[in-house]
Amino acid sequence: DPRLKIFSLNSNKPLAKKIADAVGVELGKSEVRQFSDGEIQINIEESIRGGHVYLIQSTSHPVNDHLMELLIMIDALKRASAKTINVVMPYYGYARQDRKARSREPITAKLVANMLETAGATRLLTLDLHASQIQGFFDIPVDHLMAAPLLADYFIEHGYEGDGVVVVSPDHGGVTRTRKLAEFLKSPIAIIDKRRPKANVAEVMNIIGEVKGKKCVLIDDMIDTAGTICLAADALKEAGATEIVASCTHPVLSGPAIERIDKSAIKRLVVTDSIQLPEHKHSDKIDTVSVGHLMGEAIKRIHENKPVSPLFETKKY
Amino acid sequence: DPRLKIFSLNSNKPLAKKIADAVGVELGKSEVRQFSDGEIQINIEESIRGGHVYLIQSTSHPVNDHLMELLIMIDALKRASAKTINVVMPYYGYARQDRKARSREPITAKLVANMLETAGATRLLTLDLHASQIQGFFDIPVDHLMAAPLLADYFIEHGYEGDGVVVVSPDHGGVTRTRKLAEFLKSPIAIIDKRRPKANVAEVMNIIGEVKGKKCVLIDDMIDTAGTICLAADALKEAGATEIVASCTHPVLSGPAIERIDKSAIKRLVVTDSIQLPEHKHSDKIDTVSVGHLMGEAIKRIHENKPVSPLFETKKY
Ligand SMILES: Nc1ncnc2c1ncn2[C@@H]1O[C@H](COP(=O)(O)O)[C@@H](O)[C@H]1O
Ligand SMILES: Nc1ncnc2c1ncn2[C@@H]1O[C@H](COP(=O)(O)O)[C@@H](O)[C@H]1O
Repeated sequence: DPRLKIFSLNSNKPLAKKIADAVGVELGKSEVRQFSDGEIQINIEESIRGGHVYLIQSTSHPVNDHLMELLIMIDALKRASAKTINVVMPYYGYARQDRKARSREPITAKLVANMLETAGATRLLTLDLHASQIQGFFDIPVDHLMAAPLLADYFIEHGYEGDGVVVVSPDHGGVTRTRKLAEFLKSPIAIIDKRRPKANVAEVMNIIGEVKGKKCVLIDDMIDTAGTICLAADALKEAGATEIVASCTHPVLSGPAIERIDKSAIKRLVVTDSIQLPEHKHSDKIDTVSVGHLMGEAIKRIHENKPVSPLFETKKY
Repeated sequence: DPRLKIFSLNSNKPLAKKIADAVGVELGKSEVRQFSDGEIQINIEESIRGGHVYLIQSTSHPVNDHLMELLIMIDALKRASAKTINVVMPYYGYARQDRKARSREPITAKLVANMLETAGATRLLTLDLHASQIQGFFDIPVDHLMAAPLLADYFIEHGYEGDGVVVVSPDHGGVTRTRKLAEFLKSPIAIIDKRRPKANVAEVMNIIGEVKGKKCVLIDDMIDTAGTICLAADALKEAGATEIVASCTHPVLSGPAIERIDKSAIKRLVVTDSIQLPEHKHSDKIDTVSVGHLMGEAIKRIHENKPVSPLFETKKY
């Protein structure tokens, strides 16, 4: 269908190329640059009138620049008479600011949702939101994919499967995600229960579930400074795990993350390419699984008015 | 009135302090920092429930960060039950993207207006918009101040006044602003008419008005890379001007601006503090006039439901 157009902004061009290849179209011709004073300048170099545009951008670091690129491009597409503007956001920045944990806090994840709609987005396709509730921040349709089937494929191919493996959640928040991966691997789960017995007393890492003599697969939606995941790995090792690998969908990996992972008990870290890792965030421990094919399939299904739910299965199961 | 609260974000704290002093209140306690991954973190450290909040932020470089700071703070104030949220934006970034000059261009100045309203701004106080039409991009009240009276005070104090002086607009766009300043100085005006006789032929600088043997005061709303203003100065010199000084409200001064000004025929450049100049944008030629008192007076008048138009006069006239 010539009306299906895919455009990429600057945050993750290699992934955008993979997505376009999976859909079987060329990336639309456009360029995002800066004026001398740093303001964003957009050039769309082909007509998109009446088109169904899929616009690929992760709002990863530098988040404010990537978000503004996206909003300005949506504005330009709207004014150029795109029929639909489908934002494809493999990584949704500001997702952790999804509620008022204290007084006078913003809810920036909701602000971002409002900005996208105000700019003119007509649909959102995203992946492993920090909280599924963020879907409800939108009044436009949201398709929410998950990377668990792809991560499961990786682990199964590498022999992590069955009763010798335990899938471990580093905190209470990730239990649903952990159970999903565990189902695919046909393995039991464990949960790390971080607790501070009294104020001003060091936290105790309590492991719920059996890990002694097992290979542990830690899973989280994102790894930022890697503090939590590395402490979790230490606790598992102490509790007698024979091997510890970790995985996440979104490798934010800010600050001391790479150093911590390199020094940690984690043998291997499996991530997706939802965020493009810059050179300086390289570690030999990291393996990357691409979500390009998954997102490309989702775009095809959306464009054909089909549900995306069949993509919630692994290749093999 | 204890319900009048002034908060400053990060773009221009010295000006915010001056504004608060002019109003006679302390700046509200708040802090804007970054999380490890670069996402903006806001802390408002005092209650603002039921308050009339004036939030000071210029969307100068880095424009996307300063704009997101502002939007997130508005969101936080709204959720903390501020009664009114009055955005005080001495410099309005993205103002030059105010129309589609070519196909498929965004109108980012309008996008910014929509974002501010969506976030929860209830009023805007700004200064010398690149185009007055931007007021119409808003559905909330906009108060639009001008720096011309302050710049006029400066020039009169420094002896630029009467028939020996010509106020010069560097292009067609700025004639209204030029006439305003000329009225204050009781001087005639001139306009530089840049024209390209044929495609691919160098531009010709045609001066409309008499400048020979006169002191010229060039005026523009902003100086960005300083290309236009320095060419204008050359043309005035060639036409026999005895002295050339320049002025603008917003010293964007990006890229080669400082170098160009230092090398140019411009003897002195008078700017306002609507944009805070970083250390590396220093030049001995630059004099700064503060808009702190002007904006403070405007806030007082708005808070007392009085019009801001009396501020459109010079101190002396
Ligand atoms: N970019 C960020 N980096 C670190 N912490 C954040 C970030 N954004 C929000 N938070 C905080 O993380 C908490 C939410 O994380 P969670 O409990 O994992 O959902 C909130 O208390 C937020 O204040
Ligand atoms: N930040 C910027 N720096 C330089 N030029 C810009 C910027 N933003 C917009 N423009 C361009 O400047 C022109 C408008 O300037 P003006 O004619 O002075 O109103 C438009 O053609 C814009 O594409």
